[in-house]
Amino acid sequence: MSQHDGSPALRLLGLRGLPEIGRGDDLARLIAERASLEDGDVVVVTQKIVSKAEGRLVAVDPGSPRERQELALGEAVRVLRRRGDLVITETRHGFVCANSGVDLSNVAAGQAALLPEDSDRSARRIRAGLLARTGREVAVIVSDTFGRAWRRGVTDVALGSAGIRPMIDLRGSPDAYGRPLVATEICVVDEIASAAELVMGKAAGVPVAIVRGVDPSWFGEGSVRTEVVRPYREDLFR
Amino acid sequence: MSQHDGSPALRLLGLRGLPEIGRGDDLARLIAERASLEDGDVVVVTQKIVSKAEGRLVAVDPGSPRERQELALGEAVRVLRRRGDLVITETRHGFVCANSGVDLSNVAAGQAALLPEDSDRSARRIRAGLLARTGREVAVIVSDTFGRAWRRGVTDVALGSAGIRPMIDLRGSPDAYGRPLVATEICVVDEIASAAELVMGKAAGVPVAIVRGVDPSWFGEGSVRTEVVRPYREDLFR
Repeated sequence: MSQHDGSPALRLLGLRGLPEIGRGDDLARLIAERASLEDGDVVVVTQKIVSKAEGRLVAVDPGSPRERQELALGEAVRVLRRRGDLVITETRHGFVCANSGVDLSNVAAGQAALLPEDSDRSARRIRAGLLARTGREVAVIVSDTFGRAWRRGVTDVALGSAGIRPMIDLRGSPDAYGRPLVATEICVVDEIASAAELVMGKAAGVPVAIVRGVDPSWFGEGSVRTEVVRPYREDLFR
Repeated sequence: MSQHDGSPALRLLGLRGLPEIGRGDDLARLIAERASLEDGDVVVVTQKIVSKAEGRLVAVDPGSPRERQELALGEAVRVLRRRGDLVITETRHGFVCANSGVDLSNVAAGQAALLPEDSDRSARRIRAGLLARTGREVAVIVSDTFGRAWRRGVTDVALGSAGIRPMIDLRGSPDAYGRPLVATEICVVDEIASAAELVMGKAAGVPVAIVRGVDPSWFGEGSVRTEVVRPYREDLFR
């Protein structure tokens, strides 16, 4: 393309061919065997295979919405709304989502997947495993599909991250007119998770995506749980 | 990369070199002159330059938060929350955002940019202009940067779209276990807007991005205002 001369560019690649994941599987090994990673890549891994590898599956009667709801309430610290079988909850991690993220899709019948206990830790483990196996310094994001207030439909967001700053603070950077910008903290891990979803698809069997070309200045330390999750006390909408 | 054999892939390209935009400028012409578009590209255009081209600038005293708030209230049909100078409002279009989207950044001192009157129409116009000038069938998304409930930071979302279905409904598609998925409407225009922000940046002077490789089945008719904006009456959080 003519605008390729130094203009910012990103590539997103879906990773096919992963086997069915079970408890104890080493996701880093399975990804490293299939992807040619480069330093500075961001590897986005869907929560579902992280939960499976971490054994976060529980038995549930697929014909009983009430049993599923009880599971969801067991994972919640607060119920924001109820509508029929749906509950919008705040999970122990601070995520606000439908049914505490308890999910019956893409798991075997009679099972439900719970969210990872600590998705930042999950991301750190996968990152360390990828470094050990490939020698590549990559960032890792664990993603999930959430609804949101005010807008229909779902988008992917980050549940956990490692090796990347979740929030890029442009406060103080000048705008194109040279004046300081105020209050512009961009949640790049959520934007990267959403971008990755575009090459995944819910049913496409692509649970991992590689994002190449991310601004190197974004790499560093940080946690979704401490930086992205808005604490109850500062939230205007809980 | 080894996984390139038929796996899904996307490219995101930021478009540099656009001049400062003023009222009456033909954005389609300015983009067409600088980008080598291909059929099936999605062209993401930030609201700011759309508002400038459409003359949606008004005078405001930059030292008067109250004057800005009055502007915001004038664009609103409903105030959801107030905190100091910040108001979270529902705009006439149905968007819930800070200060009705009235924005003083990246405009000349003493001016504020209002949201386009009808961002879906803006997207349709740009799309028609790009077709006329390049012969390419592309989709267009007008994007803006919004905060959200429950999570810190901002991400880009779609204000308007043309040539792409905003919501991809996977209800009824089988999951990887062959069972029907329920209630999974993915808001791909918001995900594409978020992805595009990653090559734009607030201060980087890149107000247009090209997304190449989007699933061709997503192209079609639809409107952000009628399909993505959640009407007040069905919203659990207004």
